[in-house]
Amino acid sequence: MIIDTPRQDEILKQPHRIEKDLLGYLAVPAEAYYGVQTQRALENFVLTGVPLAHFPKLIIGLAMVKKAAASANFDTGHLEARHLEAIHYACDCLINGQYHEQFVVDMIQGGAGTSTNMNANEVIANIGLEYLGHAKGAYEHLHPNNHVNMSQSTNDAYPTAIRVGLQLSHAELVDSLALLQEAFASKRDEFHDVIKMGRTQLQDAVPMTLGQEFGAYATTLGEDIERIAGMYDLLREVNLGGTAIGTGINADPLYADLAVAHLSHVCGHPMRLAADLIEATSDMGAFVLFSGMTKRLAIKLSKICNDLRLLSSGPRTGFNEINLPAQQPGSSIMPGKVNPVIPEAVNQVAYQVVGNDMAITMAAENGQLQLNVMEPLIAYKILESMRLLRRAMDMLRERCVVGITANRERCLDLVNQSIGLITALNPYIGYDNATRIARTALETGKGVLELVREEGLIDDALLEEILKPANMVNPRRLMV
Amino acid sequence: MIIDTPRQDEILKQPHRIEKDLLGYLAVPAEAYYGVQTQRALENFVLTGVPLAHFPKLIIGLAMVKKAAASANFDTGHLEARHLEAIHYACDCLINGQYHEQFVVDMIQGGAGTSTNMNANEVIANIGLEYLGHAKGAYEHLHPNNHVNMSQSTNDAYPTAIRVGLQLSHAELVDSLALLQEAFASKRDEFHDVIKMGRTQLQDAVPMTLGQEFGAYATTLGEDIERIAGMYDLLREVNLGGTAIGTGINADPLYADLAVAHLSHVCGHPMRLAADLIEATSDMGAFVLFSGMTKRLAIKLSKICNDLRLLSSGPRTGFNEINLPAQQPGSSIMPGKVNPVIPEAVNQVAYQVVGNDMAITMAAENGQLQLNVMEPLIAYKILESMRLLRRAMDMLRERCVVGITANRERCLDLVNQSIGLITALNPYIGYDNATRIARTALETGKGVLELVREEGLIDDALLEEILKPANMVNPRRLMV
Amino acid sequence: MIIDTPRQDEILKQPHRIEKDLLGYLAVPAEAYYGVQTQRALENFVLTGVPLAHFPKLIIGLAMVKKAAASANFDTGHLEARHLEAIHYACDCLINGQYHEQFVVDMIQGGAGTSTNMNANEVIANIGLEYLGHAKGAYEHLHPNNHVNMSQSTNDAYPTAIRVGLQLSHAELVDSLALLQEAFASKRDEFHDVIKMGRTQLQDAVPMTLGQEFGAYATTLGEDIERIAGMYDLLREVNLGGTAIGTGINADPLYADLAVAHLSHVCGHPMRLAADLIEATSDMGAFVLFSGMTKRLAIKLSKICNDLRLLSSGPRTGFNEINLPAQQPGSSIMPGKVNPVIPEAVNQVAYQVVGNDMAITMAAENGQLQLNVMEPLIAYKILESMRLLRRAMDMLRERCVVGITANRERCLDLVNQSIGLITALNPYIGYDNATRIARTALETGKGVLELVREEGLIDDALLEEILKPANMVNPRRLMV
Amino acid sequence: MIIDTPRQDEILKQPHRIEKDLLGYLAVPAEAYYGVQTQRALENFVLTGVPLAHFPKLIIGLAMVKKAAASANFDTGHLEARHLEAIHYACDCLINGQYHEQFVVDMIQGGAGTSTNMNANEVIANIGLEYLGHAKGAYEHLHPNNHVNMSQSTNDAYPTAIRVGLQLSHAELVDSLALLQEAFASKRDEFHDVIKMGRTQLQDAVPMTLGQEFGAYATTLGEDIERIAGMYDLLREVNLGGTAIGTGINADPLYADLAVAHLSHVCGHPMRLAADLIEATSDMGAFVLFSGMTKRLAIKLSKICNDLRLLSSGPRTGFNEINLPAQQPGSSIMPGKVNPVIPEAVNQVAYQVVGNDMAITMAAENGQLQLNVMEPLIAYKILESMRLLRRAMDMLRERCVVGITANRERCLDLVNQSIGLITALNPYIGYDNATRIARTALETGKGVLELVREEGLIDDALLEEILKPANMVNPRRLMV
Repeated sequence: MIIDTPRQDEILKQPHRIEKDLLGYLAVPAEAYYGVQTQRALENFVLTGVPLAHFPKLIIGLAMVKKAAASANFDTGHLEARHLEAIHYACDCLINGQYHEQFVVDMIQGGAGTSTNMNANEVIANIGLEYLGHAKGAYEHLHPNNHVNMSQSTNDAYPTAIRVGLQLSHAELVDSLALLQEAFASKRDEFHDVIKMGRTQLQDAVPMTLGQEFGAYATTLGEDIERIAGMYDLLREVNLGGTAIGTGINADPLYADLAVAHLSHVCGHPMRLAADLIEATSDMGAFVLFSGMTKRLAIKLSKICNDLRLLSSGPRTGFNEINLPAQQPGSSIMPGKVNPVIPEAVNQVAYQVVGNDMAITMAAENGQLQLNVMEPLIAYKILESMRLLRRAMDMLRERCVVGITANRERCLDLVNQSIGLITALNPYIGYDNATRIARTALETGKGVLELVREEGLIDDALLEEILKPANMVNPRRLMV
Repeated sequence: MIIDTPRQDEILKQPHRIEKDLLGYLAVPAEAYYGVQTQRALENFVLTGVPLAHFPKLIIGLAMVKKAAASANFDTGHLEARHLEAIHYACDCLINGQYHEQFVVDMIQGGAGTSTNMNANEVIANIGLEYLGHAKGAYEHLHPNNHVNMSQSTNDAYPTAIRVGLQLSHAELVDSLALLQEAFASKRDEFHDVIKMGRTQLQDAVPMTLGQEFGAYATTLGEDIERIAGMYDLLREVNLGGTAIGTGINADPLYADLAVAHLSHVCGHPMRLAADLIEATSDMGAFVLFSGMTKRLAIKLSKICNDLRLLSSGPRTGFNEINLPAQQPGSSIMPGKVNPVIPEAVNQVAYQVVGNDMAITMAAENGQLQLNVMEPLIAYKILESMRLLRRAMDMLRERCVVGITANRERCLDLVNQSIGLITALNPYIGYDNATRIARTALETGKGVLELVREEGLIDDALLEEILKPANMVNPRRLMV
Repeated sequence: MIIDTPRQDEILKQPHRIEKDLLGYLAVPAEAYYGVQTQRALENFVLTGVPLAHFPKLIIGLAMVKKAAASANFDTGHLEARHLEAIHYACDCLINGQYHEQFVVDMIQGGAGTSTNMNANEVIANIGLEYLGHAKGAYEHLHPNNHVNMSQSTNDAYPTAIRVGLQLSHAELVDSLALLQEAFASKRDEFHDVIKMGRTQLQDAVPMTLGQEFGAYATTLGEDIERIAGMYDLLREVNLGGTAIGTGINADPLYADLAVAHLSHVCGHPMRLAADLIEATSDMGAFVLFSGMTKRLAIKLSKICNDLRLLSSGPRTGFNEINLPAQQPGSSIMPGKVNPVIPEAVNQVAYQVVGNDMAITMAAENGQLQLNVMEPLIAYKILESMRLLRRAMDMLRERCVVGITANRERCLDLVNQSIGLITALNPYIGYDNATRIARTALETGKGVLELVREEGLIDDALLEEILKPANMVNPRRLMV
Repeated sequence: MIIDTPRQDEILKQPHRIEKDLLGYLAVPAEAYYGVQTQRALENFVLTGVPLAHFPKLIIGLAMVKKAAASANFDTGHLEARHLEAIHYACDCLINGQYHEQFVVDMIQGGAGTSTNMNANEVIANIGLEYLGHAKGAYEHLHPNNHVNMSQSTNDAYPTAIRVGLQLSHAELVDSLALLQEAFASKRDEFHDVIKMGRTQLQDAVPMTLGQEFGAYATTLGEDIERIAGMYDLLREVNLGGTAIGTGINADPLYADLAVAHLSHVCGHPMRLAADLIEATSDMGAFVLFSGMTKRLAIKLSKICNDLRLLSSGPRTGFNEINLPAQQPGSSIMPGKVNPVIPEAVNQVAYQVVGNDMAITMAAENGQLQLNVMEPLIAYKILESMRLLRRAMDMLRERCVVGITANRERCLDLVNQSIGLITALNPYIGYDNATRIARTALETGKGVLELVREEGLIDDALLEEILKPANMVNPRRLMV
């Protein structure tokens, strides 16, 4: 019996082949490398409109796992050489970026990733079948379950593939982060002598340099390079060989170690077998923590972008200390208006990353007993967050940070007008005098330096010395 | 000067036209109906990979606003008849679903929606130009800003279009919800005589019918039909005519009322002008509350799906009171296993909706002064949540609820074995006897009825009467 | 056997009485009005350190439910007159604020509220016993379960009490909100003629009045007064009479309607019985939506406070358009610094309310089958959010809003310096001229008016007319 | 002028002293060790009702910072020996747990912690004054700002104190975690030979031991011991010496290193100075990540408690594989009902911790420029989460885990009835036979072993061998 869905009707009108699984027969488009189980998932899950193919690193991760598993199965004598060769050929195609459009299942799916795993098994089988000179669907020669999925369950192959996929995505993320960090570091150097007022609680505080301000952005991002790198380790521990629930039922006792060794070789990262495979099969802790790390990065980027928007506010009614490069006209009604569109977009990306972290948290909490069935959502949202962050950082660097310029005179004027300067004079004229002058300045609108000079509280030479930028923006000994 | 980006290089190799804006010249593909400002946004925002075109209701909302605005501008004498005709023609094309592929800007964008608004203005202008017999780009005959955007700012046109788009999406969501509610109501009737044990805190409680259990799902969803309908009103209040910040600068005093009246007519919903346009321009409260409503629905669906998975757990080691229809083989390693994949997918959709609500919350909080610049994210995430919920409800109904069957005997056996039955005997044999018998049953494994009979605490006729299903699952007077 | 805990050891050294429940004997302090089950909960749950007594409205809600239930039980002939009188006396004591310190159980507790319900039952019984002339603990004369809890289960009495408690808290919240709204409205009037620049995306936009800005705050809060009032209805639907799982087992068929009628009378709000008591027993939808409403209010308050902090930033290096009243010295190191401490505290309250909403969301999602066992957390967090919001609004009004003053000259200077003024001239000098002048102003630092005058683009009389405040801050007809 | 508040009225009626700050005079209760600035904060912030005194580790952290700063100031010659001695005496009192009730400010407060810092400065000054033989308030002899706060700003002293406080709380948290891990490990050993069915997606999967299941809980918690320990390092980096904004203005160049060295000595943890003090002053990244770690632990605990509730569901209509120790009667209406109240309470704690993490996330995102003013909320919520987790783990261990017993026979019966057993026979009878038998078992209700025997597919000796527990719950070679 062929399930009677609109989709099946359409397929039956076109060239197709019929495949069979436990639930019966189903038509699959003739040109499709995927098979009956993928077809069922396609019909079951019409949700996000985002297919697996949108995340190439996940597909490559799946191919690497399948390749490593085949090698281990060959080593233990369970897989024949010709099957090994065909599977390896197919996996290499996927690793090289071919056939990714065959990964059609929705990123959100029930079944704890079974549909994703079967999509991989079926595509690999059919590529392998053609390689062996057989027609697609002639699974007696190379079977998606018996050969491609040998010694595996979705419950170990799939989470392992996610971890491999994250490892590969990782490097890209860190690259973008490092480039952004360098862009800020370069501005730190460029602005090292731009003296300006620091602000706490949005109120005038004490002087600093714009270089120090941008240097802090470089520092804070630099910390995340280290911290994200430290997370690699979390993702290296896999449960491959645990099969259905981590007991390794139906797997050769030698298989797990061999498979992981092959996997390390294939993916170029030193993966390792978890000590407790039961735990490793259901635990989402590594994903929760890794997602928490993407959230931290998102929050930092958002804070930096909030600052950039504040510092460039104006031009006449705001802080106006820096200029962001114009990227597009700002308004159809207000001539000459240019808006900080790039940081604004980064803020929004950050909020989505926080939202994704929340979705991941709930998914992690709702796993039950020997398996977390929400893993597809977890994989989807982490991969999405990583990609969004990478693209947002590239955009921020290329279209904003590298083009930022300083309004030196404006910065200096604000320092000279500021009441906060009085803090630097505090040790010389005393807290009481300082407070009194601050108040007078506030009430009269006069400058604090003017008032200090008027009262002759401190001689001009010393005053000049104290207020030299280099003397105000670092700790120093008293000059008297 | 043409901005030197890889994308521009590619466009320049193909047929193209050159357009100009405040920042200079840019090449646009010759066949594109969008123009220079959309092109800039395309190059600026490469983030989600999800273009506006993925949300047709938003595009239709934009077209309806532009159509209504043109009518109002004609009424006040600012727009000529031929411009009106061309704009109306173009808007009608969009309303009918044509040209949607021209809406290419990323859903996440800086600029508070300016790029979306300009994408609409440019596409409408170029469709209109062709209608008038001019080439695309000949804006002297029909201008994206001067004519299509006349009397508007992104800051009033865009949020109004979002509200119209949500109104339209709304109806679809409620339809899916009503169908799902009916499916549960139908199961309520089908299962009205299946007596089973109720459970509180996962512990045996007292008897009920499976029909009552499914009826509660119908009731809880029915409440949301009403509640969501009540939210319509929130979305009917618009700030059209407020222009840049709500003061209505540069708009005719008659314009706002006319535009809103035309809009009501065009979209078929009675929209109304906000009393305080300053407030209406920056406030995201309606979106926050509406998103909270989608969250509530998501939570209800997730709870129901959790229950369905529990009730169908087993078949041998779980509750096994109901059977979900099999949709796909459950395991490559475990023969005969069928999993509750449909409810599992609904759970994941629900978690994403909660995550989206969080993103919307942060976006709403971070608006500043006269505008909330995070509106594009808010629109994106609400529309996505509504679509996901609709699709998830359709899937749940079609592929799960309608095919659920009851294991009547199993349900009855569990009642008969249960210690919870003793509660029904409580008023007849007293709390002390009841407690003692419950303990004995627990310790010996005997049934409570057996023990009651053994002790002769109550005569058999009365016992039978008390334990009739109809007598246990509703309030009743004491029978002695 | 008395459970051997450190707490029991201490109690045994003091005057005490011994009580008994299903699990055995336990010592209770002699002066305690609570009994054995409360004592167990005290020993089981040492978590937040926040006892029920911290939320008086919840205790009053419990007392009102118990009073109404007793009346209904008397009406149906199950409760004797002297028991009724004693229970009513005890409930009235609690409603009047007495004995609240006897509610000692932690707000976070397992058991779906059973400990809270039993804390109420026991305290009421012992107050009633003393009223009847018996010793505390002489439950044969008035029993916590048999009499006080008659016809009730925790599963209907407790959620009903929460709803009553929220109704009572509601009024207080709306009062504080209305007072805050009035404070902003009063500032709207006071600042009606303070002309200033509006800002979008933190960039100079077009003129408005400070009165319009503060008026928008009044409007947005005013909307929430209405909206929260509309939520009352959600909280009026109760499941009293559903007993254990909503089937009403062991309750008289007349009881539910009578009990709800008495409850409406006792609490002064028209409560009504849910149509589907099975659904009403497990559904948390009303709480999810109500919490979403507190989140919306929190977000609005946070946005307003963000604005107040921006508008008062400076005094010399920020916007400096308004002054917040000084509430405490701002710095131990920076003389004269005064910070916006009140809005800062409101922001933090808002973030906690958002966090509470998330906790409530997860609790609501994780209810299973016939009961949501996470209800104690839900009640705790909603009541906490309401109290925090109320206090934060009172603080914001008393210690900040009423004392805000405007810097009129600064506001006007910013308008006169602003490039955004050019927007108002747009219809008179054309978009191209306007854009050119805006650029020149930006590059040279000159004012746009100065440039317009230099070029003689518009005669001085008209220029003056256009730029009159009243003409710039509202829609108007062209003046030529 | 004394501020006219109800609170001041009350204080003036009692013994009091008058103190003065920048804003004027204020009455402070005569017996109070805190002073005018604390008094202002008390009157300003009436929000949570939770004073600093509820978090002793934070107070000790403050005292340790003040003690170390005094030592450094003495070393650089700025503080006299008698002032040093008095400050050290006062700090030691606080470190020893005395005077904590003097820390009265609300945990949520504006001013970025200034009120907390001043509460510490004032209490230390007044304890020191009495030590020196002076009256409280005689600040000319020992000044809260000039002496106790010397070389410090709230902006460096306060975040440093939080980090010290977290270090101290840390150890307690890890202790509770380790004890809980041991309790599960002990159950792992106790249950090592209880054979049972594993479940994936709530459906019968393959056999395992209850020991393996509890061992996984031990493993997953063990991982967090390591991971949390790895977080120590994050909290060791401090910005002490950065003063107002990290530039170290008004501090001696030698001060920062000396102060941090003294602090390491005082608190017994090797603290270190951040390389970039500007960054360290505003960055909340360490708190975000640490909070993310508490969230991960909360999610793990919640997952475990969900499992415990499932495994103990029943007794007659659920899984009933384990028994949780009874802690309190479960129902006032259902005799003999005992509920899993302890795990239920842990779930709720976990949801609150997730909510706290969200509040912290928003607070971290909303810091601006040189300082994050939301730090008080961040400190409050992290400390609260740590305390809740600690208490919840102690409760879970003492009142639940250690008393869990297994229902061995029930577990074995479920294995023998289960269809999932067929998986173990798969390699011997083939996937097709296995699938057919699985279906027949499902349809007829017969056991799979029975069917295998009936068909004579495998001889009894081998069947027995295959189905030995030790052979089913680990990987093994084929036995033919």
